[in-house]
Amino acid sequence: MAEFSLIDRIRQRAGSRPDVVLGIGDDAALIDPPKGQQLVLAVDTLVEGVHFARGVPPSAIGWKALAVNLSDLAAMGAEPAVALLALTLPDDDSAFVDEFAAGFAALADTHRVALVGGDTTRGPLAASVTVMGYVPKGSALTRAGASAGDDLWITGTLGDAAGALALWKSGLPMLRTGRLRDRLDRPTPRLGAGIALRGLATACIDISDGFLADLGHLLAMSGLGADVEADALPASPALLEAFPDPLLRRELQLTGGDDYELCFSAPVARREAVRKALDAVATPASRVGSLVAGARLRLFDADRLPLPLPARRGYVHFAGSGA
Amino acid sequence: MAEFSLIDRIRQRAGSRPDVVLGIGDDAALIDPPKGQQLVLAVDTLVEGVHFARGVPPSAIGWKALAVNLSDLAAMGAEPAVALLALTLPDDDSAFVDEFAAGFAALADTHRVALVGGDTTRGPLAASVTVMGYVPKGSALTRAGASAGDDLWITGTLGDAAGALALWKSGLPMLRTGRLRDRLDRPTPRLGAGIALRGLATACIDISDGFLADLGHLLAMSGLGADVEADALPASPALLEAFPDPLLRRELQLTGGDDYELCFSAPVARREAVRKALDAVATPASRVGSLVAGARLRLFDADRLPLPLPARRGYVHFAGSGA
Repeated sequence: MAEFSLIDRIRQRAGSRPDVVLGIGDDAALIDPPKGQQLVLAVDTLVEGVHFARGVPPSAIGWKALAVNLSDLAAMGAEPAVALLALTLPDDDSAFVDEFAAGFAALADTHRVALVGGDTTRGPLAASVTVMGYVPKGSALTRAGASAGDDLWITGTLGDAAGALALWKSGLPMLRTGRLRDRLDRPTPRLGAGIALRGLATACIDISDGFLADLGHLLAMSGLGADVEADALPASPALLEAFPDPLLRRELQLTGGDDYELCFSAPVARREAVRKALDAVATPASRVGSLVAGARLRLFDADRLPLPLPARRGYVHFAGSGA
Repeated sequence: MAEFSLIDRIRQRAGSRPDVVLGIGDDAALIDPPKGQQLVLAVDTLVEGVHFARGVPPSAIGWKALAVNLSDLAAMGAEPAVALLALTLPDDDSAFVDEFAAGFAALADTHRVALVGGDTTRGPLAASVTVMGYVPKGSALTRAGASAGDDLWITGTLGDAAGALALWKSGLPMLRTGRLRDRLDRPTPRLGAGIALRGLATACIDISDGFLADLGHLLAMSGLGADVEADALPASPALLEAFPDPLLRRELQLTGGDDYELCFSAPVARREAVRKALDAVATPASRVGSLVAGARLRLFDADRLPLPLPARRGYVHFAGSGA
């Protein structure tokens, strides 16, 4: 494989930042981090046939490979800075690389992320991305800081990506799935919201595996339970139109992954402050319940009648499982 | 796949460091970098069937996946700090993960590297590792700083890994290839040497793709050429014994990859200082030539008679090509 020409193609779209002393092209990248900041690091891999179907546009794969990682930074309240990309390709397909790089760069440029390390390898199609961001010392959001009585919040809407996947698997034509499919293929990491929630959210996680599964991680790390009002879970107009059956729709919202919204807790007393902070970054948010003492998760409908928990809380990606 | 139990298995061996505020277990890792340091970041992927053969012990794959990255930090003169691992596995094989993690941890512990991020995915066997290290501001070694007249140096010995690969491909029994095979499966990143060379080496690169190929990168970035004395290239006793034919041996030393030695330049006036600095970290080193003006690379024998350059300068890994 002409590794160097493939890397050169990606490098053309790598972007630059004042804190990047050396990017792609030496043995390693050299970064001059801003003073007083802590570093936030995350890695995630997308594999063809597991996280995306054969036939997804290369630009969408490039976008999503970065987006899922930026979403992890968002959940920590971090500002992204640089990314490293390990791309495994079955053959020397420069058109694929160009389109992949264009999708990656479209999202990277939006958030001033520079690509500072790249590695191309021959093998089954997969993209592993590492991102690094900054957060002022002591102000990172974690999964562990929630208190009983805190409100439970969700940004944006839930279930769109899982809805797209369900429609796609059912063989419906693409035009019916357009808006939902966008959520699946080109998720929007909630970076502005994560930064706005510094000092307000007591705990935070991004929803990649499904609302119940990821809420479960937050609860476990915070040592708490939650009462969730299922009917308060936010749904997009596209989801409401595509899934008029409320039971099926609720299942998608509770267990569907790939939404990359933020699920966070905040004190009741900061309710207005949370609204204001998220309004300022144009991020819609919904209160969906409360944290409670004890390690239990309860679902209610709008009349406070208990609902059964779905048998499967996790999320099945395109095929197989995994995260 | 039981992703969480696999990550838990790896997490048990993750290690800790005072600068790691949060390791595996939240949305991202949180690091408090030491003051006055720049960050050095590198990523490299090993794929089964490309970078290692089916049947290589999992512990060797774990070791090497980290080693090839630490070697990039060594070439920058950096001190390693943390690593992130994206592991793709064909099935939920906990014995493989345990052995892989043991090999990874054996090398990580030696160099006080903490594993702070992990991702396991179902797919064809591959390990993508990102490493971050520190270097005092302004003291990183790069490929670009050499001057005409500088000595050209090599740490350790060349050709062992390529020799092991050649013997292995020829079907010779393993016992004949033992010492060489160790170089191929469990390379030693020259971290102590890289740190010792701060302020002494004018340019540095690690030899992953082969001496001529990697020297070519250093020369291109420094805008120079080199005169190399082929007979001065250091050979191990094991290579001398296994490859008595000097022509074949020289070919392995010039073009064989996976040695992970450092190739560096230093002023003639610092010759003794280089010796002393590398002696202090018990790293053997050999002077193998000089940098010259102009973009040409010339090979000589011990009598200063010119030698032809090999037709292929790059390195073919276990199968296919790529880096």
